[in-house]
Amino acid sequence: MVQSMNCEIINVGTELLTGAILNTNSQFLSSELSNIGINVHNISVVGDNPKRLQLVLENALNNNDIIILTGGLGPTGDDLTKEVVSKVFGKKLVLDNTEKEHLQNWFNKRNIPFTKNNLKQAYLPEDSIKIENPNGTAPGVYLHEDGKYIFLLPGPPGELKELYFNFVQPTLKSFNNQKVESRFYNITGLGESLVEDKLKDLVENQKNPTIATYANLGEILVRLTANGPDAEKLLDEKEKIIKERLGKYIFSYSNNSLVNTIGNCLIERNLTLSSAESCTGGMIGEQLTAIPGISQAYLLGLITYSNEAKIKVLNVNKKTLEKYGAVSEETCWEMCTNVRKILGTDFGIATTGIAGPDGGTPEKPVGLVYTGLATKDTVKIKRNLFYGNRDTVRKRTCNVIFQMLREELF
Amino acid sequence: MVQSMNCEIINVGTELLTGAILNTNSQFLSSELSNIGINVHNISVVGDNPKRLQLVLENALNNNDIIILTGGLGPTGDDLTKEVVSKVFGKKLVLDNTEKEHLQNWFNKRNIPFTKNNLKQAYLPEDSIKIENPNGTAPGVYLHEDGKYIFLLPGPPGELKELYFNFVQPTLKSFNNQKVESRFYNITGLGESLVEDKLKDLVENQKNPTIATYANLGEILVRLTANGPDAEKLLDEKEKIIKERLGKYIFSYSNNSLVNTIGNCLIERNLTLSSAESCTGGMIGEQLTAIPGISQAYLLGLITYSNEAKIKVLNVNKKTLEKYGAVSEETCWEMCTNVRKILGTDFGIATTGIAGPDGGTPEKPVGLVYTGLATKDTVKIKRNLFYGNRDTVRKRTCNVIFQMLREELF
Repeated sequence: MVQSMNCEIINVGTELLTGAILNTNSQFLSSELSNIGINVHNISVVGDNPKRLQLVLENALNNNDIIILTGGLGPTGDDLTKEVVSKVFGKKLVLDNTEKEHLQNWFNKRNIPFTKNNLKQAYLPEDSIKIENPNGTAPGVYLHEDGKYIFLLPGPPGELKELYFNFVQPTLKSFNNQKVESRFYNITGLGESLVEDKLKDLVENQKNPTIATYANLGEILVRLTANGPDAEKLLDEKEKIIKERLGKYIFSYSNNSLVNTIGNCLIERNLTLSSAESCTGGMIGEQLTAIPGISQAYLLGLITYSNEAKIKVLNVNKKTLEKYGAVSEETCWEMCTNVRKILGTDFGIATTGIAGPDGGTPEKPVGLVYTGLATKDTVKIKRNLFYGNRDTVRKRTCNVIFQMLREELF
Repeated sequence: MVQSMNCEIINVGTELLTGAILNTNSQFLSSELSNIGINVHNISVVGDNPKRLQLVLENALNNNDIIILTGGLGPTGDDLTKEVVSKVFGKKLVLDNTEKEHLQNWFNKRNIPFTKNNLKQAYLPEDSIKIENPNGTAPGVYLHEDGKYIFLLPGPPGELKELYFNFVQPTLKSFNNQKVESRFYNITGLGESLVEDKLKDLVENQKNPTIATYANLGEILVRLTANGPDAEKLLDEKEKIIKERLGKYIFSYSNNSLVNTIGNCLIERNLTLSSAESCTGGMIGEQLTAIPGISQAYLLGLITYSNEAKIKVLNVNKKTLEKYGAVSEETCWEMCTNVRKILGTDFGIATTGIAGPDGGTPEKPVGLVYTGLATKDTVKIKRNLFYGNRDTVRKRTCNVIFQMLREELF
């Protein structure tokens, strides 16, 4: 693959121009393409309008080698991506009989009448390759014409992702006459600007490997991507520097989230956890229970949003609440200690704070959150002051709780 | 405003082309612009590359009357949006002394040294209007040149939204010599395709008002937008039809989410709620506690993910679990009844199900979820079978629980 191969993503669909749908396909594709060393130079969103789509496509072909189009492959009259691509390349649309059969089976199996408009999905541009779509009715299309590589993918994210990994990624990799490899370093516990500072020289002088940082509410992903026969060696060199500077903040080398890392570690080590959430109100539980199989480790969560619940269900001392308030080191201490004891889990965690927008005072401002972690023998309480809105304060709190668990586990 | 006024959104930032950031600004802007009757014809994403940005901007100016650029207004050398816009319109960048002072105060207040590169943010194109940014250091810019309306907005979503509502929306509305008005109908309890079926003729024959539907995991928003002196009357006519066909499924006329509608209704009516979550694992609590002021209504949540917790904390009968299993009508019944009793709240809700990907059997497949609602006098249990992945099953469960509460409340 020529180093300077450019890519444009074209998302087709009026629903993207009215704000009806959040465009997650572009983020998925551009992130995955970066991982295999392909630079996305432009993303264009265009409605279900054949004239405008043709303009955007022709313009993209002038400046790029790879074009990935998403959406507009369905059965309705609005779905015109194949039609426009065929027109631009002077191709006819031809019925694919295997696909026709596959479609009819798909409908029969689900007991849905096969209406004529659905047949549209079995037509493919001449000389193109069909990309089978196991999860839907519209197959993808691959066309290699005039030195350009054109991929047409269905719009639903689940279908698009599968076709990308099954076909697009291996095809793009096969063009490549040199190895491209990425490595990931997931970091937490260090401010985003500090991570950037520590890697500033690497970022400014990057060539091969390239280096990129992605920050998201307390978690930072650093990605190294190298190409060429020496890719491994080049990555090893830079990895050594990254480890030296950030080693103790790296919690995963496989692009895993902090909560997944913690949850799977609990499962693997047969450790158990209970939580008592006030300001996060269930967010910690929700994140943990998104992990399949967590039920063996995460035994109990209490959302004790009211003082009544703290007293009655969590056995927090009424005097503690009266003397120090619900948002205090003392209350947090009792919360994590007591929730752990209910089922005798290995860990008990607790959050109590003022997420805002109201409820702050000069002594206890919005953003003040206490986070606690109790084991059989120890209790750790952290006082945090977060900036940002209610949602940000709550998410940052989750991040700190998982950091505290990480310190305990690693 | 001329009916056919076209708009293009240009998002500037390499971080959008590497997948580092999800482009939520485009969805926000295109949705808001639709609400005031402006059609977005294209969205373009371009990196921090002045040549490519110039190309995209010139192309956009050929086809559109309104251009909204986001990002690239910050202090770094990569931030080049103002520079490119000035170049295209033949303008100089001029130091705005008021902005300079504002910037210096901003840094002083936060005890951060004011470095020279920050001054870049106080330079504005000649003949432009500054859009003040109370939440950040980079102001927005408005330029009216050659019959084109150009808005430059900062990239951080919180800042962008405020500048949009403070300046962009009223400015665009002021162009308008005819009224544009939108109305919203939030619907739940009816499948997405059924809602579309019921409105099919309105959608197919739409002119003025236009009609659009937006579906999201059990909640469907229908938006009517009309313009002209008769806008109100035209809306009234269509609203009558919508109410006739969908009336009992409409839970809000102010584009409010179901959980917000329920939560605020509980607060207003001084009603109280407790929850016992198994498969949703805290998701219900997390959604409720995102509502400011909910603490007076949502008193207690239990995340009883393990049988042990169901027995010990929620007092579910061990025999019920043994005989019927954790995912059963009987267990759900005890969960919602018992959780309500702990603090004697008006309502008790419960979820128990198999979210997948594992744990399904022929009798109890993945996606089977029982949802329960108990009051002092009644208990309602619903058996649901959801399709989709773990996340979808959990989110659909929350939707059904809030629907059950709605039926009880309205």
